[in-house]
Order: sequence, then C-alpha cells, then structure tokens
Amino acid sequence: MTDTATKIAAVQTYVDGFAAGNADIISTMFADDATLEDPVGTDMIVGRQAIHEFYVGAVATGAKLTMLGEPRCAADFVAFPFSVAFSFEGQASVIEVIDTFKFNDDGKIIEMKAYWGPENMKSA
Amino acid sequence: MTDTATKIAAVQTYVDGFAAGNADIISTMFADDATLEDPVGTDMIVGRQAIHEFYVGAVATGAKLTMLGEPRCAADFVAFPFSVAFSFEGQASVIEVIDTFKFNDDGKIIEMKAYWGPENMKSA
Repeated sequence: MTDTATKIAAVQTYVDGFAAGNADIISTMFADDATLEDPVGTDMIVGRQAIHEFYVGAVATGAKLTMLGEPRCAADFVAFPFSVAFSFEGQASVIEVIDTFKFNDDGKIIEMKAYWGPENMKSA
Repeated sequence: MTDTATKIAAVQTYVDGFAAGNADIISTMFADDATLEDPVGTDMIVGRQAIHEFYVGAVATGAKLTMLGEPRCAADFVAFPFSVAFSFEGQASVIEVIDTFKFNDDGKIIEMKAYWGPENMKSA
C-alpha cells in the first residue's frame, strides 16, 4: 500500500502542476492504465496518454488550485477539497471540488474521481 | 437519479442528526441494503440495522459536525468536507473528514464512505 506521505505529496504535486501550467508534472503520477472521471458520472478517460491530453487542456485554461483543508488518507485513497480559479466565458470564476486519488502498489494514481456540480461554480 | 436539492438536504440532515444526538434521523436516510465504510479500507458495515447501530455509537460519543465547504454533487453522489469535534481519551479533539454518499433511485443512501486517517486528528 502506498504510504501516507507519498499520497499527501502527490496532492501537493498536483496543485504545483497546475501552478506551473505543466501537464507533464501531473500525468507522470498516473499509472499507464489509470482511469479519470471528472466530474463523476461523465465518460471515463482511460490510459495515461488520454489523461495527459486531458490535463494539457485543463492547464491551458489557466486553472489554479487552492487547497481548502487537509488531504484525507484512507487505505489506497486520498480525498482532498480545493477550489479552482479559472476563466469561464470571459468571467473570472471559482469552483469548489473534491477529488479522490486511488493508488496502486507502485505509488501511481490508478483512479481519479472529481466531485463537483454546476451549483459549486461562482463568479470570482 | 436523486436531484441535487435532495442530496444537499441529506448532508444537512446528517449534520443535524449529530447535533441532536439522534441516530434515527441519520439511519432513516439509508436504504435497507446500504453499505458503510468508515474509514475507507475498514470492514464494510452492511444493512440499515447495522448502520443504525453504528450511528447510535457515533452520536453517543458526543460527536458534532461542522461543514468545511460546500457539498459537491455529481451523478448519484454527494461528497462533502467537514470536521468532527469529539472527546478522545478525555481530550477534546477534532478531525477533518470527507464523506461520500451514493443515492439510489428512491433518494436513499445506498453507499457511504468516509475518508480520514490518524494524521487528520488534532487536539482541539
């Protein structure tokens, strides 16, 4: 099982990757056969290459993440609350999100799920 | 699919149930065949009766919940960040937690998962 320090560091790297606008920093943390669902209920993105392309698009929006509390680690998972500042139709906006990462035994993210809905989006 | 307002109201009812020290308020929201994992990775509690007993024990500790951000609704789920104030070995303590509820088509909670680890617990 991936240790707590590694899982907490992964969350920080995720935030740092957006701050740097660098999708490589983020997608390198994912396993080759990882899955991503953002938000939960939408089509699953499968495989690190597709996940990389997803994050290339995400960082290109200028999205910046701010943690809104501690990462919560349990078993193979970490869950963490954050806000995302970004531009939506020319309007500075912010959305509150909770992500979960599941890790495999190699310390790679094997599953990412993002929980948010339109009611979480506000003008900044 | 359970609508967003119902899911957000369930989160409030959950907080209110702890405030009132009333496990019935909480367990009534669960489906007969619901599952509960608190924290994730521990033995799953199965069925509303067993879940009720879990919450009888939980409210008996005097645990009170404070929301630490908005509920995030996506598909059949709501995820929400909160802290729990409680007494641990005679010491006033607080822990940051993220819960997810999954709802069935009857608007009942079919699955509850709680994400937290020992590193999230602090003296109050």
